Amino acid sequence: MKAEILAVGTELLMGQIVNTNAQYLSSRLPQVDVGVYYHSVVGDNPERLKESLELALGRCDVVITTGGLGPTQDDLTKETISQVCGRKLVLHTESLEAMKGFFGKLGREMTQNNAKQAYMPENSIILKNNNGTAPGCIIEQGEKIIIMLPGPPSEMKPMFEDFVYPYFEKRSSYTIESRYLRVFGIGESALETKILDLIDRQTNPTIATYAKEGEVTIRVSARTAKGQDPQVLLQPVVEEIGRRIGNCLYSQENLTLDQVAARLLLENNITLAAAESCTGGLISQMLTDIPGISAVFMGGAVTYSNDAKEEYLGVRHETLLKYGAVSRQTAGEMAEGVRSRLKTDMGVSVTGIAGPGGGTAEKPVGLVYIGLSSEKGTFTKELRLFGNRSRIRTVTALNVFDMIRRHVSGIELDASLEG
Amino acid sequence: MKAEILAVGTELLMGQIVNTNAQYLSSRLPQVDVGVYYHSVVGDNPERLKESLELALGRCDVVITTGGLGPTQDDLTKETISQVCGRKLVLHTESLEAMKGFFGKLGREMTQNNAKQAYMPENSIILKNNNGTAPGCIIEQGEKIIIMLPGPPSEMKPMFEDFVYPYFEKRSSYTIESRYLRVFGIGESALETKILDLIDRQTNPTIATYAKEGEVTIRVSARTAKGQDPQVLLQPVVEEIGRRIGNCLYSQENLTLDQVAARLLLENNITLAAAESCTGGLISQMLTDIPGISAVFMGGAVTYSNDAKEEYLGVRHETLLKYGAVSRQTAGEMAEGVRSRLKTDMGVSVTGIAGPGGGTAEKPVGLVYIGLSSEKGTFTKELRLFGNRSRIRTVTALNVFDMIRRHVSGIELDASLEG
Repeated sequence: MKAEILAVGTELLMGQIVNTNAQYLSSRLPQVDVGVYYHSVVGDNPERLKESLELALGRCDVVITTGGLGPTQDDLTKETISQVCGRKLVLHTESLEAMKGFFGKLGREMTQNNAKQAYMPENSIILKNNNGTAPGCIIEQGEKIIIMLPGPPSEMKPMFEDFVYPYFEKRSSYTIESRYLRVFGIGESALETKILDLIDRQTNPTIATYAKEGEVTIRVSARTAKGQDPQVLLQPVVEEIGRRIGNCLYSQENLTLDQVAARLLLENNITLAAAESCTGGLISQMLTDIPGISAVFMGGAVTYSNDAKEEYLGVRHETLLKYGAVSRQTAGEMAEGVRSRLKTDMGVSVTGIAGPGGGTAEKPVGLVYIGLSSEKGTFTKELRLFGNRSRIRTVTALNVFDMIRRHVSGIELDASLEG
Repeated sequence: MKAEILAVGTELLMGQIVNTNAQYLSSRLPQVDVGVYYHSVVGDNPERLKESLELALGRCDVVITTGGLGPTQDDLTKETISQVCGRKLVLHTESLEAMKGFFGKLGREMTQNNAKQAYMPENSIILKNNNGTAPGCIIEQGEKIIIMLPGPPSEMKPMFEDFVYPYFEKRSSYTIESRYLRVFGIGESALETKILDLIDRQTNPTIATYAKEGEVTIRVSARTAKGQDPQVLLQPVVEEIGRRIGNCLYSQENLTLDQVAARLLLENNITLAAAESCTGGLISQMLTDIPGISAVFMGGAVTYSNDAKEEYLGVRHETLLKYGAVSRQTAGEMAEGVRSRLKTDMGVSVTGIAGPGGGTAEKPVGLVYIGLSSEKGTFTKELRLFGNRSRIRTVTALNVFDMIRRHVSGIELDASLEG
């Protein structure tokens, strides 16, 4: 089945928010043989919403809308779609009661405008909202399926998983399964050159590359009948790509570099501490986004000032004087210091200039030193990164995670580029 | 002028990446009187790209594409659009030279497939790419304007700012200016009730609300002739809304809560240190995303283990034994400890259970204590948050920034809800 995801909300067209819902749904639907062919976004305008809906119904079998189900006056999705489908809105008592319960649990009073959310298109399948107030629904209109989901991702995602995914799973006879191979330390065009013959003769599976900050992802997608194992098609291609790329390939399962590093630490029971200067807590924050990491990640220090580097990490005063805070030597002592202070197996460190200010001719913005200390010794690496503050911080963190990965896996450190 | 942003890339339809480009362009274009009416996304498929382009040209004056200009085989935007517009692709020598220079600077060799990026539609305005390889271009086709920009945001944004924004600025006679009022500590439906009469009688400026994790944004937009001051229309509405909402309104300039907290610290020259448990560096990371913050933010500690809380922060062993790590008492001692260890004016702390594991009947997932220590004393607050790990961490960080804001501004702490 061909699907379009139609997001409704002027806040999207004004650039207030990013359409993460479209991404989420797009990553899930192929698994139940629903291919996403279009994303579209319209504002809270009934005329344009009507036109977009009709266009979508003309070119796709399934239209999934997100947003515009809320209590406020500009929430018009349900009203507009019901009109297009020639259906009345009728009170769904169960939803109204659930809504009252939701407000009760938060200890807030339900304002009158909320009741509107309980009026649903007649003869539709009502989707309960366990994480907010507005229910969703599925309308089966002749050959077409229209599904309305709420806008907030924290409500949309569980509603999709609980009701919409199973709804399609029951109907599907094919499945599209993708493997995502993630590569760090080699650029997109150089990478494509290595696998161009594979891409050229692709039919099933298909192969595509995608580059983002400091890394490249290769997607390998196979379509198979339900019940058959897609890995039979996928695995040989994945292995061939792996042979061509070598140890710059860090995940065959679409894990991020921080997840791969975390998994290696957990599997080998290696405890870690992090000392961060210009990344300012980014490494700790990314690691602690991973549930269960507290078994090996003992903590970290964000040491912006020289004082803090001395006080918290025991970096020597002479080192800071002689080589400066942004130096290979300081990075090394920071990694050693945080490791010894927190009594961990491994310490990592970052010191550098993320910009926009603070650069000099000798030490320009983008100059970063990273360090790793373990029982095997202390290792440091110089990075010279381009881009803005955010890019420099992100690519630095990736380099640290790659350093951990290479160290734990026994791969030489110097093969990686710097992104 | 009416515009559509047409993103090209199967990676978007597969849910590999989020369409942040559409957001960025949407937030900038209204300022040069280009109203964004539609976003759309198609895959790397020449047929559907052609249809989508024709649709966009039918309903809008300006079509801006992002993506599909790169060196690989599935990059087909330029080829497809040139065909629709009846234009040949011709070698643009200057772009080819720039590309060679770009690779030279990175110390990499240019692979052959890159040259394709230097073939541009004849009689178009070439947009130089200072941050990557693929140039963009502007085609003026009768009454219509088609603009092609590269996909990577780090290339797209500077190209837009350097060439596209000025291009429209010269042509525009009106401007749409928006003010974004940001509110923390009051829900969307309760907030709308307070300002419903203002929304009801809106014409110019228009007013709309948007809710996201723990906070609400109110957008007030005015359209004025170029050269006239839009604030004449905006300011009275902003002030009236401010009177209704009181001190839950934390920014009239679309600043985020971390930016507001950072600005208050910088303006008042108050130094800060942060001790984080369940937020794991998120507060430090958000603060250090702000250039110049190193003048007041002295660093922080991520103390996951009890040992680290004692060792790094001087939390008393008895406190941890008697009340537990997740307690008001521990939060208070953590804030005091990090403040005294880093010799700052203010210390903030977080200790809590972000989930998914670690919750008990007595201390469930979502129970978080935050603390603030200053010369005025030590303050703590209990939060009971819902949602997943990521939401709990984010809303906790927002509460800490709100605590800083309220403390520095002399607003009572308890008025805020917990999100």
